[in-house]
Amino acid sequence: MRILGIDPGVATVGFGVIESSGSNLKMVRCGVITTPAKQRLALRLSRIYTDMSEIIDMFKPDCIAIEELFFNTNLTTGIAVAHGRGVIILAGENKDIPMYEYTPLQIKQALTGYGRAEKRQVMDMVKRQLNLSQKAKPDDASDALAVAICHARYSSSLLNIEGNGTECFTI
Amino acid sequence: MRILGIDPGVATVGFGVIESSGSNLKMVRCGVITTPAKQRLALRLSRIYTDMSEIIDMFKPDCIAIEELFFNTNLTTGIAVAHGRGVIILAGENKDIPMYEYTPLQIKQALTGYGRAEKRQVMDMVKRQLNLSQKAKPDDASDALAVAICHARYSSSLLNIEGNGTECFTI
Repeated sequence: MRILGIDPGVATVGFGVIESSGSNLKMVRCGVITTPAKQRLALRLSRIYTDMSEIIDMFKPDCIAIEELFFNTNLTTGIAVAHGRGVIILAGENKDIPMYEYTPLQIKQALTGYGRAEKRQVMDMVKRQLNLSQKAKPDDASDALAVAICHARYSSSLLNIEGNGTECFTI
Repeated sequence: MRILGIDPGVATVGFGVIESSGSNLKMVRCGVITTPAKQRLALRLSRIYTDMSEIIDMFKPDCIAIEELFFNTNLTTGIAVAHGRGVIILAGENKDIPMYEYTPLQIKQALTGYGRAEKRQVMDMVKRQLNLSQKAKPDDASDALAVAICHARYSSSLLNIEGNGTECFTI
């Protein structure tokens, strides 16, 4: 199963594609879509939508896993990120790819076994579980891979954790 | 000048089309796009994007005016609304229509001369300024007409108020 993981945003959208076969995981590609802060939002959203559509066409994932939003820091940034997340979800829907969302807690739990793990620990586990020679860069790409791994673990039931990714964003 | 005003949302998106010629304003059409609460968000966003694109094709506005988001009540609803607003902005951008955003305060000020006016007063002014025989219904359609009127007033400089709609959403 090929999974496209997404760390949503407006300035930077992380994406990570993995191939999962049982407990075996392999990275296919990871990277980021970036948009200039000074560009008007409409243009940035258009770029994100177009690039995300191209990524889906290029890697043909069987499903998409995307991180849920939490507004615990900057509300203004959070609003912009939610705009970006909207067009990302639209891109997935228009390509007819099943989507699943996971909370940061679920992702940390799936990667490290501990829901309050540090960001650094999660990045270490991404490297280890994908057998990478070094940490995935930039951070947003690593975060996207973490979401993809999380979905692989939950969907293959390797983890005995209650709860599952909420299908298709019934916020 | 033909203006499409939008009251963003996910459950209900209000739209209102007006024709402005100097100080003279005329309603062309108003209405709402609604999506079922039980439907998954991806499908709701897709519906909003498609319907908004059709509305733009049908009424061929010269510009779009959309309300800014404020999260003063329900944060969860606010996040969903920001998702919806993202795909609305994308629809406008993909049709290459200039967009302007206004805060609720700017809209109230433009309609009633008082930034803290009640919702009811704004609806009364929409009816009066567009010479409608009765209040525009539903409320979200009336709110969308208010945004369109606000843009007409600001852009024709009939109001001597400081500040202007922020072009194209540089959040």
